Amino acid sequence: MASDARHPHRWGFADTRLEFDGPRSVRMTGARYPLSGQSMPHLIPYVEHMLGVSFDPADVMPESTPPVPPPRLNSTLMAALERLLPPERRSTDPLFRLAHSHGQLAVGEVDRLLYGGRFARVADVVVEPVNEDEVRAIVAAAIEHGACLVPYGGGTNVSGALLCPEDEVRTIVSIDMRRMRRVLSVNRANGCALVEAGITGAALEEALGALGCTCGHTPDSLEFSTLGGWIATNASGMKKNRYGNIEDIVVEATLVTPSGTIETRRPAARTSTGMQPLPLFFGSEGNLGVITKALIAIHPKPEECRYGSLVFRSFADGVAFLKAVRAEGALPASIRLVNNREFRLGQALRPAAHGIHGWKSALQRKWLFGVLGFDPAALAACTIVMEGTSHDVARQERALRRLAKRFRAVWGGAENGRRGYSLTFAIAYLRDFFSQFGIAAESFETSVPWDRIEEVCAAAERTIASECAARGVAGHPYLSYRVTQTYHAGVCIYFTMAFSGRGLADPGGVFHDIEQTLRQVILDHGGSLSHHHGVGKIRQRFLPQVHSDAGLEVIRAAKRAIDPDNIFGIGNGACGSSQTGTSIS
Amino acid sequence: MASDARHPHRWGFADTRLEFDGPRSVRMTGARYPLSGQSMPHLIPYVEHMLGVSFDPADVMPESTPPVPPPRLNSTLMAALERLLPPERRSTDPLFRLAHSHGQLAVGEVDRLLYGGRFARVADVVVEPVNEDEVRAIVAAAIEHGACLVPYGGGTNVSGALLCPEDEVRTIVSIDMRRMRRVLSVNRANGCALVEAGITGAALEEALGALGCTCGHTPDSLEFSTLGGWIATNASGMKKNRYGNIEDIVVEATLVTPSGTIETRRPAARTSTGMQPLPLFFGSEGNLGVITKALIAIHPKPEECRYGSLVFRSFADGVAFLKAVRAEGALPASIRLVNNREFRLGQALRPAAHGIHGWKSALQRKWLFGVLGFDPAALAACTIVMEGTSHDVARQERALRRLAKRFRAVWGGAENGRRGYSLTFAIAYLRDFFSQFGIAAESFETSVPWDRIEEVCAAAERTIASECAARGVAGHPYLSYRVTQTYHAGVCIYFTMAFSGRGLADPGGVFHDIEQTLRQVILDHGGSLSHHHGVGKIRQRFLPQVHSDAGLEVIRAAKRAIDPDNIFGIGNGACGSSQTGTSIS
Repeated sequence: MASDARHPHRWGFADTRLEFDGPRSVRMTGARYPLSGQSMPHLIPYVEHMLGVSFDPADVMPESTPPVPPPRLNSTLMAALERLLPPERRSTDPLFRLAHSHGQLAVGEVDRLLYGGRFARVADVVVEPVNEDEVRAIVAAAIEHGACLVPYGGGTNVSGALLCPEDEVRTIVSIDMRRMRRVLSVNRANGCALVEAGITGAALEEALGALGCTCGHTPDSLEFSTLGGWIATNASGMKKNRYGNIEDIVVEATLVTPSGTIETRRPAARTSTGMQPLPLFFGSEGNLGVITKALIAIHPKPEECRYGSLVFRSFADGVAFLKAVRAEGALPASIRLVNNREFRLGQALRPAAHGIHGWKSALQRKWLFGVLGFDPAALAACTIVMEGTSHDVARQERALRRLAKRFRAVWGGAENGRRGYSLTFAIAYLRDFFSQFGIAAESFETSVPWDRIEEVCAAAERTIASECAARGVAGHPYLSYRVTQTYHAGVCIYFTMAFSGRGLADPGGVFHDIEQTLRQVILDHGGSLSHHHGVGKIRQRFLPQVHSDAGLEVIRAAKRAIDPDNIFGIGNGACGSSQTGTSIS
Repeated sequence: MASDARHPHRWGFADTRLEFDGPRSVRMTGARYPLSGQSMPHLIPYVEHMLGVSFDPADVMPESTPPVPPPRLNSTLMAALERLLPPERRSTDPLFRLAHSHGQLAVGEVDRLLYGGRFARVADVVVEPVNEDEVRAIVAAAIEHGACLVPYGGGTNVSGALLCPEDEVRTIVSIDMRRMRRVLSVNRANGCALVEAGITGAALEEALGALGCTCGHTPDSLEFSTLGGWIATNASGMKKNRYGNIEDIVVEATLVTPSGTIETRRPAARTSTGMQPLPLFFGSEGNLGVITKALIAIHPKPEECRYGSLVFRSFADGVAFLKAVRAEGALPASIRLVNNREFRLGQALRPAAHGIHGWKSALQRKWLFGVLGFDPAALAACTIVMEGTSHDVARQERALRRLAKRFRAVWGGAENGRRGYSLTFAIAYLRDFFSQFGIAAESFETSVPWDRIEEVCAAAERTIASECAARGVAGHPYLSYRVTQTYHAGVCIYFTMAFSGRGLADPGGVFHDIEQTLRQVILDHGGSLSHHHGVGKIRQRFLPQVHSDAGLEVIRAAKRAIDPDNIFGIGNGACGSSQTGTSIS
């Protein structure tokens, strides 16, 4: 079977994790990230201060692997798969099956895997097709012999979408798509490439980069998530202002379903040819079939990529600035605004300052706080990525600097911008470090109209405080947030929530309840159910608040038409039922 | 019933048409357009030269109105409609019913109405709801009493979408939506407005304009077409670079269907909440229900709107320029490139030049052709609309002028740009003028990848020449084209075709055959079935070339789920059958 450098259950690479390098200091192992190898003396004190609990290396919870239920193997199906695929591309290995039966929910998936949970149902067999014909043959075998198929991409889903329905009695076949990773053709004149859907973002950028091109789609999960997974969750990338979200990037795609292959035979930049099947692929979450390939927009690598950062006196100032940036028509590829807590978390990840760096940093602080009078407990910060021709990048920076003055912001320089942007890829490792101490931490996101940003953030803060108090959570809950995307009509707010589960009888259950309460509060205050994480299983019950009954029914009708026997029976979103749902906690 | 200033059958306003003001000269009546009232001495000579036939006022064909078949009125349905709507919002007037039973196809609709054709089936009754509840009641009555419902917006469709299926035995109710034209709410902070779907573009811009805002969607049919019609055909607007096409503008919409109201209860700028019903509305062409309202993006009126124009030595130079403009990131709101013939048509619409204007124009020609050596039979031209802050508009113009030099273009000034842009709204009147002489003229469009633009245009030119020769068409056929939109992966090409039907036994049939042949040739050379006109009835037979079988089937399944009794039985696109199709010629 395909092996990779990833940890089978935790986030990310197996060689990368946080570990103590002193009683109060941590370091990131490996050499993959800017943070790697550096000693970080400020992180533990910051998190202790924020959560009101202490961390001692001796408190690390021991890891265990949950028992894996025996596979339910339909012998005629297995015989058919044996005819279709060589042994190295079929597996019933228990740990491999388990690794294909979860995503990256910190609470409900990763914590259950590592700290004594159990999975009632996991994939029974994992297969690895290498081309579309094999996918079609696997689907045909599943129909003939009665199996349940689950497409598997990068395994980075955070909505419970990969959890197997507990009442599924058929053999569950996980289709690991990562061997289907070829760039099939590139057309520079039209700026597009036909790519197999199992390619990861990192591999895609590497392949296109060798041709001087980029796709530009940059989700936080870029290293692991796949093109097919992006489509199935309706993913968003950090540089969407320049390259678009996944629905803007994909010109056309192919979906292999039980009722045949759905694709447009004549892809075009834009058409009016009646109702289209393609939009159904976005957010299909494995319910309809296997996305096998897509024609995607590609671009020449930008002549220049320049980072920038800004410090604001308040989050509100930063939001007003983001709005003005849109109006001004000077949108950089990426512009994100972190709130005070998230800014301070970033600061807490800095290495011990030595020599000139320490001196410079002290001087900067003196200038910001002493001379300009910024309040360290109120400021917020933007990280900016500008791409384009040198001329255009220079223009963007000029426009941003000019606007920044109007919002009393201080230009924080390119290095802070680069650092803030890159932290994105390292931050998930923090979650797994602190989960060893029973810290339940998770991110969740929403899209909010511009005029309700403050309201939604304040409501979320109030809710987590009151919920944690009511449930006897030790210390203080932590909630930070950032605006990760802006649109004409609103923004994406990305929250990070954490609290200590110590002393709670069922910390996962408490977390789940609080998360669901928060979700309702966000909906009640004008937020959407999700901006880019999806529905999966953990947000299914809110769908009737999103769509009218007739709207949900037409989605289900499409599912029934495409997959009348529910071969793709993973049961996500509108295609799941609360009866067959998997419990998360 | 609602009356308007429009001609019931021809394009546009009743007070506006071309008429002879001399034996070789025409003028546009009325006072609505920049062209109105001006004597145009060059048009007849140009068209005579192009088509190789002559025009004499004495040759104008006499107009007649076709016989209107008697209405098929289901008495229980009619009684229900009487209970629902006051008499002034119900009509069985024959001409009113006829006016609601066609769009603006020059050949197959308008020519049949005016020059002795016939319609086997038209709407039996026209109703005018004023709110969503009335629409729901009409749909309920149609279900209860067994009627066929046809939503009617601006009547500007050019794909035969409003033609009633000849074999429809139920009472056909045309739902004229134009009384549902309120702007229900405006939220400036979030840049959106909730608007009833029967509002015309002109009325929408007027209402928003009073608030200092604009939607910015500018299809050629802006004066007459409606928000609901834009969604149902997946419309494109001239200024889409700034404001987006209709699918970018609509945040959320409401569709009243036989199985209930489909809408998203929590509209958001962008979401990942599973599969969505909304995309089905775009291109639904009346097949699913009535679009009653939409939440749309609105913008403050731009600080500045500036026009520009460029003259290129060749169409190919112009295309290369358009591509470079995208790469440079300096896209104006609108940029369109006309080929040589279309440029010369624009010149032929100029008034007689007098005094300083004539002298200036002669000098410009001398400079362009004599000094710079442009070939008058090869040049092409761009019209440009720049919008934004004054700063941004100035930047766009600088960037465009800088780029233009690289492509050996000459800046043609703002006035030519404004004129070229405004001509769009007047040009359809030309079609109806020449149809009086038996000229069959129509526009059709496609989207094409960048690297096949030249190929598609050349193939279309060859095809029309050989087809007309083979069918004994008198004189020469005329084919002009322009690039009206650019995208990352390609462009929209908008063709205008004309030839004389004189001496042909069945000119409409010949036109139809040639149009269908051209469409196939365009598909064969990489063009799409349509960029923004839609499928309707005249392009249905090509759909199997566009979608895979399973793709078409999922669209039909959605239709069946939403409208199991085919109440919305207009039969467009994938929801029509060739058996029940209406003959166009």
